[in-house]
Amino acid sequence: MWSSKDIYYISDSTGILVESLGQALTCQFPEISFNEETIPFIQTVNDAQKALERIMAQSVGLRPVIFSTIMDPEVRKVLDRPEVEFFDGFAFLLDRLEVCLEAKALRTPGFTHHLNNDKMDKRVEAIHYCLDHDDGTNPKEYDEADLIILGVSRAGKTPVSVYLATQMGIKSANFPLTSEYLGLYSLPEHIINNRKRAIGLTSAPEVLHQMREKRYAGSTYAKLSTCRDEVQQAQQIFLNYNIPYISSSGKSIEEIATQICQEMGISRNK
Amino acid sequence: MWSSKDIYYISDSTGILVESLGQALTCQFPEISFNEETIPFIQTVNDAQKALERIMAQSVGLRPVIFSTIMDPEVRKVLDRPEVEFFDGFAFLLDRLEVCLEAKALRTPGFTHHLNNDKMDKRVEAIHYCLDHDDGTNPKEYDEADLIILGVSRAGKTPVSVYLATQMGIKSANFPLTSEYLGLYSLPEHIINNRKRAIGLTSAPEVLHQMREKRYAGSTYAKLSTCRDEVQQAQQIFLNYNIPYISSSGKSIEEIATQICQEMGISRNK
Repeated sequence: MWSSKDIYYISDSTGILVESLGQALTCQFPEISFNEETIPFIQTVNDAQKALERIMAQSVGLRPVIFSTIMDPEVRKVLDRPEVEFFDGFAFLLDRLEVCLEAKALRTPGFTHHLNNDKMDKRVEAIHYCLDHDDGTNPKEYDEADLIILGVSRAGKTPVSVYLATQMGIKSANFPLTSEYLGLYSLPEHIINNRKRAIGLTSAPEVLHQMREKRYAGSTYAKLSTCRDEVQQAQQIFLNYNIPYISSSGKSIEEIATQICQEMGISRNK
Repeated sequence: MWSSKDIYYISDSTGILVESLGQALTCQFPEISFNEETIPFIQTVNDAQKALERIMAQSVGLRPVIFSTIMDPEVRKVLDRPEVEFFDGFAFLLDRLEVCLEAKALRTPGFTHHLNNDKMDKRVEAIHYCLDHDDGTNPKEYDEADLIILGVSRAGKTPVSVYLATQMGIKSANFPLTSEYLGLYSLPEHIINNRKRAIGLTSAPEVLHQMREKRYAGSTYAKLSTCRDEVQQAQQIFLNYNIPYISSSGKSIEEIATQICQEMGISRNK
């Protein structure tokens, strides 16, 4: 077994996909330490030659791994050399897909060029909406939201809202359940009127306590007992108003966002 | 050739990777219209059986395509049926990677579970920093920024800042070049002091004009001549202060973010 390995993610576009693909695979080998580098925008034979020179200079004699999602066979050929372990992320899948669809693939670089403008405009609009409606701002405009995330401070509302907007073009507002609502087990009118689009985010009190301690160590706000009370009160509010809720503890931003879409029946492929 | 095809992205985790992988491939067949659905969190044989039932009910007789990144062979086997076109996004790559690394893969579900907490904390912190330093807010705290994005209104600063923070954990501030700076070809002190971490975002005047018309149709702000002047003045400022700049026109958020990292020598694998 190799104890460490140099690995390069090479793409004719941004490299975001090939990097995710490679990392999904390398994380299956936790005992090996990987030295990763992403090389994006390799679109010509000349680009590929330069990339190969750099790789060989850095990883000479180490049989580096190259993961590639380059579409052009001529460009790809430059990198598929006996001195490296070359992995084509697409080849096998694309060939089979051509057979199954009874059609020829374009084999042109750059997935992102195929993103249509409407989809991009929708994401930009969602990001601006999300920032303008973060942390309880402009609640009168909640009619326009696709989603309203409710939760106590530091339950993860903002990161999840931002992710939903950035990646999926979902106009997501978020609203903090502060003491004025928690103590009365109530919600403001703008949320009650839009509660069909509201979802609660909760958290284990211990996790919340740790998060808050990082911000305001030793404060009443950060105390475990405060966190316990707030989480209990927030959950009671969700139950009272029949608002579904999920826990953010131990989950990544991606996992929480995906669960929210599932719970609310929001398709991210539209 | 099929004119349309039902395609399902199935994952034991969020499904974000398998969806990106599938879409990178399907976009190579622009003449075929794909009906896409993502089914995340398929972790048990029972989950897979339910997913298959749903797929067969929706796509009976249509030979739907299933793209999968499910790690567990038992779970995967349920979906790999003669009635569907089953594509395993990992199999071939993972088998070869085991040979090349001389090690056995874990084959446990959920890439995101392998994300370490430090990386997640860094992203959450970057998102909060980004929101607190959007559109010129809190410039006195620019010392803490990894990156400061400068540009005229609607050049794309906010979406790109948010993307850099959310996906890459980069603390990115953004600052609007408004008339008070453009007219004098100058920058405020907080940016001059941090100009090594500043990058300019520019745009074709025609594109800017269209973007602004959507917001404030018929205004002086949106006029093509205003856009031309502002873009020219902004570029002159970047040149005067030796700040690199790139154009956002015709590019996706991902492409702009990737180019910024390249230009500024920021590694996204750290």
